[in-house]
Amino acid sequence: MQRLNNATMNKGITDFPARLASVAAETEMLLTRLLGDSPLDGEISRPPRLVAAMRHATLDGGKRLRPFLLVETAAVFGAARTGALTAGAALELVHCYSLVHDDLPAMDDDDLRRGRPTVHKAFDDATAILVGDALLTLAFDVMARTEVHGDPAVRVALVAELARASGLGGMAGGQMLDLAAEGRFDPKRRLTESEIATLQAMKTGALIRFACRAGAILGQADAGALASMDRYGTAIGQAFQIADDLLDVESDAKTLGKAAGKDAAAGKATLVAALGTDGARARLKELVAQADAALAPFGARAETLRAAARFVAERKT
Amino acid sequence: MQRLNNATMNKGITDFPARLASVAAETEMLLTRLLGDSPLDGEISRPPRLVAAMRHATLDGGKRLRPFLLVETAAVFGAARTGALTAGAALELVHCYSLVHDDLPAMDDDDLRRGRPTVHKAFDDATAILVGDALLTLAFDVMARTEVHGDPAVRVALVAELARASGLGGMAGGQMLDLAAEGRFDPKRRLTESEIATLQAMKTGALIRFACRAGAILGQADAGALASMDRYGTAIGQAFQIADDLLDVESDAKTLGKAAGKDAAAGKATLVAALGTDGARARLKELVAQADAALAPFGARAETLRAAARFVAERKT
Repeated sequence: MQRLNNATMNKGITDFPARLASVAAETEMLLTRLLGDSPLDGEISRPPRLVAAMRHATLDGGKRLRPFLLVETAAVFGAARTGALTAGAALELVHCYSLVHDDLPAMDDDDLRRGRPTVHKAFDDATAILVGDALLTLAFDVMARTEVHGDPAVRVALVAELARASGLGGMAGGQMLDLAAEGRFDPKRRLTESEIATLQAMKTGALIRFACRAGAILGQADAGALASMDRYGTAIGQAFQIADDLLDVESDAKTLGKAAGKDAAAGKATLVAALGTDGARARLKELVAQADAALAPFGARAETLRAAARFVAERKT
Repeated sequence: MQRLNNATMNKGITDFPARLASVAAETEMLLTRLLGDSPLDGEISRPPRLVAAMRHATLDGGKRLRPFLLVETAAVFGAARTGALTAGAALELVHCYSLVHDDLPAMDDDDLRRGRPTVHKAFDDATAILVGDALLTLAFDVMARTEVHGDPAVRVALVAELARASGLGGMAGGQMLDLAAEGRFDPKRRLTESEIATLQAMKTGALIRFACRAGAILGQADAGALASMDRYGTAIGQAFQIADDLLDVESDAKTLGKAAGKDAAAGKATLVAALGTDGARARLKELVAQADAALAPFGARAETLRAAARFVAERKT
């Protein structure tokens, strides 16, 4: 992997797939190490069933898009790659926990995730609840570690931002709004386009935006650069969700590795439903342009992030 | 409340009930403020249903024993009370999240908690899962705030310790072992006395021990004093669980505010079952003596903590 890293370092857009694959491989290695059998300092024991289920939820899956964005944003500011990868692993743990809980029968009731049984199918509901809880907790453990950054002020800032992005005013709140949007608590409830945008900014946007902010924080960027990365992250977060909704409409379960067409079946409010597929595609183009505009101050250093915006908007799985 | 604080400050054992009540009232006030309707910096919106359910899970309940231990341990080292109360509120959020998830139908399936319907009964299962997730996340948000301590190194140390105490090698892992001890995954599974001790050290001991360590960390105690508070916290954590198990055997639902006799019905392994009630009472006495011994270096400054050990061992609800 070291060879791959060196080969792909700072080559920009043409090497995009290799750079993405490299972060994915390095993240997988870190996550594997984090989910070892032996208790760490301050831990009493690690129950084997819980560790196994946490591995099932976390390893061997996903594009690791959030860690990639964090690592590549940090690289723009010349931050150390090891710290960015460790922070990225913490972020991926939050993402994985949210998938496990969202898949539960009481939530979205999904049997399939990344082409494999969801945690509650492979294990059981109680184990899946605890897996999510333990992954979320581990994320903060990892973000607080010195490997992330030598300055505790940087680490505690990342902890604080991750919590805000993930909690009641971010991802968890977004899932609450999503359940409400299905009409679960009030069958007559229909969301406006602006409410859908809020829901999506919380449910999926917040973590993607955090990835980009975290890279800037790790690189100790000034306020202007942080604001630029915030705009970039916000734009690609929206693009990610629209692309996801388009995939749900146009794809099948085999390609997605999870159930397709579920949004319409669940009466879920999406911007694709509100704008139509052509309108949604036009919106995607605008968002990529917004992402590019936000990156203007960084010149050639941001080539990979420009490619990432296109990748997010055009992805097929 | 200010009057009460001044009146009860540094009076030791005779004022124990007033000191306990004061921390409970101050914690309630802090938690109420933390669970406000308005989004904070970095939050997008706070869904009203989620906020209401988080309040149901958190407010108007409990002795706030963990915040009390944190505040009184911090007081031994002369740490600022506001910081200790804020850290205590963060810890209480973790405790409350664990109750919400443990009560879920897929877990211990309890309808009653502190004499009121559990969150999934008052709302629904999906909301209860999200309430737990959002409370846990908020705990780390709060622990990272400058109100806890001016030095980010202290805050990040508290975040790290809280995560270790709460996660797969602590509280969440303990709940996993507890489900296994019921024979849920293997009906023939029976725990040894040492396995029961490990389970309890994780499920309930870890957070109580954290409370005492956190007070010492806030007070920037030296390694020896931190180790003493660790021993104290470990002893009263064990005492707490044995007292809890005795109450489950000897009390009724009306007194407990939750179902009684559930442990035996669920075939749960407890030290009371292993030692008998007389054996368990003898063990409680030993643990209080251990707690006293750990506090010896602190002399009169630790009077309230000595009283707390007795309170934990002798409590009736």
